[in-house]
Amino acid sequence: MRLEFLGTGAGVPSKERNVSSLLLDLNQEKGETWLFDCGEATQHQILKTTIKPRKVAKIFITHLHGDHIYGLPGFLSSRSFQDGTSPVMIYGPKGLESFIKTSLAISGTHLRYPFDVIEVNEGIIFEDDTMTVYAQPLEHGIPSFGYRVEEKDKQGELLPEKLRALGIPPGPIYKQIKENETTILPDGEVVQRKDVVGDDKRGHVISILGDTRYLPNLQAFVKDSDVLIHEATFADEDATLAYDYFHSTTTQAATLASEANVNKLILTHISSRYTGERIEQLRLEAATIFPNVTIAHDLYQHEITK
Amino acid sequence: MRLEFLGTGAGVPSKERNVSSLLLDLNQEKGETWLFDCGEATQHQILKTTIKPRKVAKIFITHLHGDHIYGLPGFLSSRSFQDGTSPVMIYGPKGLESFIKTSLAISGTHLRYPFDVIEVNEGIIFEDDTMTVYAQPLEHGIPSFGYRVEEKDKQGELLPEKLRALGIPPGPIYKQIKENETTILPDGEVVQRKDVVGDDKRGHVISILGDTRYLPNLQAFVKDSDVLIHEATFADEDATLAYDYFHSTTTQAATLASEANVNKLILTHISSRYTGERIEQLRLEAATIFPNVTIAHDLYQHEITK
Ligand SMILES: [Zn+2]
Ligand SMILES: [Zn+2]
Repeated sequence: MRLEFLGTGAGVPSKERNVSSLLLDLNQEKGETWLFDCGEATQHQILKTTIKPRKVAKIFITHLHGDHIYGLPGFLSSRSFQDGTSPVMIYGPKGLESFIKTSLAISGTHLRYPFDVIEVNEGIIFEDDTMTVYAQPLEHGIPSFGYRVEEKDKQGELLPEKLRALGIPPGPIYKQIKENETTILPDGEVVQRKDVVGDDKRGHVISILGDTRYLPNLQAFVKDSDVLIHEATFADEDATLAYDYFHSTTTQAATLASEANVNKLILTHISSRYTGERIEQLRLEAATIFPNVTIAHDLYQHEITK
Repeated sequence: MRLEFLGTGAGVPSKERNVSSLLLDLNQEKGETWLFDCGEATQHQILKTTIKPRKVAKIFITHLHGDHIYGLPGFLSSRSFQDGTSPVMIYGPKGLESFIKTSLAISGTHLRYPFDVIEVNEGIIFEDDTMTVYAQPLEHGIPSFGYRVEEKDKQGELLPEKLRALGIPPGPIYKQIKENETTILPDGEVVQRKDVVGDDKRGHVISILGDTRYLPNLQAFVKDSDVLIHEATFADEDATLAYDYFHSTTTQAATLASEANVNKLILTHISSRYTGERIEQLRLEAATIFPNVTIAHDLYQHEITK
């Protein structure tokens, strides 16, 4: 799993930061990537990376403000032009489908792949055999959501020493033992998988929140995340502005990270009023509360390993 | 008058060329600027220039393909955010208003200035005391328009030698003579303005065409333009592609320029298949037919003087 920040600014693009978009690279896990928000010129940012639009299989929109969605029609069109043929699922608040369909229809755009827009509400919005995605309403004046991406725990690896102790020599039988709860050996002996594998490998958890006022009660939703991505539109001293505009501060995001036992905090959606040395100040404000914190910048990447 | 090309590519943004947008700087003539088309990331291109979004008073859309309109919602929003308070008039084909209003409404965007969307058809679409703008249907699969911007002829300058010959000494009376058809001097003498001013100064004419197949019968519409801006999506050898996709070639654009007696031809909307030295080849193809030709690149500027 790898995160790549395509836009880390707030509201309006600046020379330093584009508007919001974040890629979650699941190529190793699922052979695909997911996009979270798609502000204007997300496809232009992608031109600076190795990201392949045709690999983007899911797009999660946190909320419908322009700086989070105005790049969608262009991204979807260019994905089609650039040989994207596999389907795309798009998740987001009510109204998203109408924006996409109006934009494509008026511009006479016919995508070469099917897509579906799924209106999200609180709870599980996607689940397959490797991943579960949960949505959580936030507080931003208009409907805004956080997404918790939970990789399912994976069965532990076969332990060769245990197999050897049972007198089973290496061979194709190992694969069979790994893939079935019980295996009957050629000699009639029964092997229980649980007796020969190590502990389950815990799946990773990534929590990506949309724009929001500070919500202490989000602890449960983001609990134990490997990475929490939280907006920090404002510095600590601008907490009143943050509240008035339905945004959060550095210290508020750090407080949530600390109380929810997350491993790493990445702050994004930084107001263009903060540049140069003030960015390091923002980081320090957060770090006094939660040390493992980074302020994202455009094209910043974070690899999730354990 | 000054032209500044913000995007000169076709269809999809590339590293070299953004999608279509062109600024006509009328600051000297009218204290405002006009935008022609507004592909995605036009506002990002503007960040690289000295253009002030609040000065953009009119936006002309040639046609509704995504590479010509997907930057509009973001541009309009950011103009509001960046202290734009004066009204904006937007001209374009039927459907444009619905795209703009849907995008702004769904994103909860409230502009701090009024705007109006005017559906264009053939003929005069705007006229005031200094300018006339004509629209001309083109051939592009969907409705596409060309715009002819005609500056009205301006009255000639006062000729001091003629005034002196009439025995009128320099003073505030000169202004009065210039601004009125007839002026009665303090001594009762009557001065006819036409007797003391030079020839009218011919207004400039700029013709900006949207995407189109080659249309020889456009000669009348673009006749005598100081500058003709024509798409040249394809090289001469790709004329079949051009026809099939409702586009033009270098030589077709140059032929029109030559036959319509324009002064300068600027080619834009260049397919991303042509890069590096092939751009100069495109220019040469056109130049053999019409020598005063330039292939626009992003941020290319052309000052119109006479
Ligand atoms: Zn935002
Ligand atoms: Zn085009």
